[in-house]
Amino acid sequence: MTGQYKLTYFTIRGLAEQTRLLLNDHGIPFEDHQVERADWPKIKPTMQFGQVPCLHDVDVQIVQSGAIMRHLARKHDLYGENDCDRTYLDMFFDGIQDLHSKYVQMIYREYEEKKDDFVKNTLPEELAKFEKLLKSKKDGKGFILGDKISFVDYTLYEELDILQILDANCLNAFPALKAYHERMNIRPNLQDYLKHRELAKLPVNANGKQ
Amino acid sequence: MTGQYKLTYFTIRGLAEQTRLLLNDHGIPFEDHQVERADWPKIKPTMQFGQVPCLHDVDVQIVQSGAIMRHLARKHDLYGENDCDRTYLDMFFDGIQDLHSKYVQMIYREYEEKKDDFVKNTLPEELAKFEKLLKSKKDGKGFILGDKISFVDYTLYEELDILQILDANCLNAFPALKAYHERMNIRPNLQDYLKHRELAKLPVNANGKQ
Repeated sequence: MTGQYKLTYFTIRGLAEQTRLLLNDHGIPFEDHQVERADWPKIKPTMQFGQVPCLHDVDVQIVQSGAIMRHLARKHDLYGENDCDRTYLDMFFDGIQDLHSKYVQMIYREYEEKKDDFVKNTLPEELAKFEKLLKSKKDGKGFILGDKISFVDYTLYEELDILQILDANCLNAFPALKAYHERMNIRPNLQDYLKHRELAKLPVNANGKQ
Repeated sequence: MTGQYKLTYFTIRGLAEQTRLLLNDHGIPFEDHQVERADWPKIKPTMQFGQVPCLHDVDVQIVQSGAIMRHLARKHDLYGENDCDRTYLDMFFDGIQDLHSKYVQMIYREYEEKKDDFVKNTLPEELAKFEKLLKSKKDGKGFILGDKISFVDYTLYEELDILQILDANCLNAFPALKAYHERMNIRPNLQDYLKHRELAKLPVNANGKQ
């Protein structure tokens, strides 16, 4: 059973991993359609912006990772309880996107020259903002919204995960983020998926850098 | 009367202009709090991500331009009629953000070297995607959603506006986008605001390039 969803992306974690995590954690069936680079020229013209990830919800094509996450959030009750929650989640999500843009810029364009500077200067400054925000609800001991898990928890978890691949010690100065990552990491459905992913040796990024 | 909203940003159009346009077009009162660069070091630490634009809705601080636009969209019925519309708007909005990131990169980092290439190669390729999407509803003769205006119409209008400042002819090959920009441009409340903005000589970008 693959259900109504088909997620199309490359054979990497990249921008699709947050969506794979969300779907797996909630036991939502989907087809994980991983495209080899050689097949991309055929697929690219069929995408609205010539990009993936793409989620097909039955016959509706949804591109842009944020639009995909928000779509699933609305359908599966992962967008908070009210408009105040939704605005907070939008802000948190876009904040992670800003950090992720800097990470991607470094990984794909300036890895050799800028990795050390990114780890030493950019990361502590950026992570301090999320540590503070996380601690503003339930003293950082719950989810981003406090009691209720949301779509942005998968975005944050994945971001913290790849940042620790970049530098295993990067969360040491941020105890709330570190404990949060550990709590997410042992969720049973995620554990099952992570074991499967490890066997598949899915790379973090397309250029092999991480 | 400035109402419940206070929008804080620099004395430029930049990332806040789409919000100023939305609020003015709907006659929603707000305080347009424009900060001089000299005052920024005092304000920066009070912002969640150390950035503006920031919208205060009474005492709630909202940063990230996308979160601000979605917040106003939910409150003022500018987010379509149903979840299908909302997903489409999210996708369209994030698509414009991708184009805007390329524009900003060129304006702030590579203006002299890359402007011509951006106008000649990047813009036609990007604008073709939006021309096609716009024409998919009401044959491109209405708003992004067809009949009903939405928050993303202000984002698209502003993007088309600044791109025509960069290159006055850039929409000539895209008749639906060109006619759309002209239709938005003559909305009475926007006209009033645009006259006011012209008198204030508000720059497009912080480095004077446009």
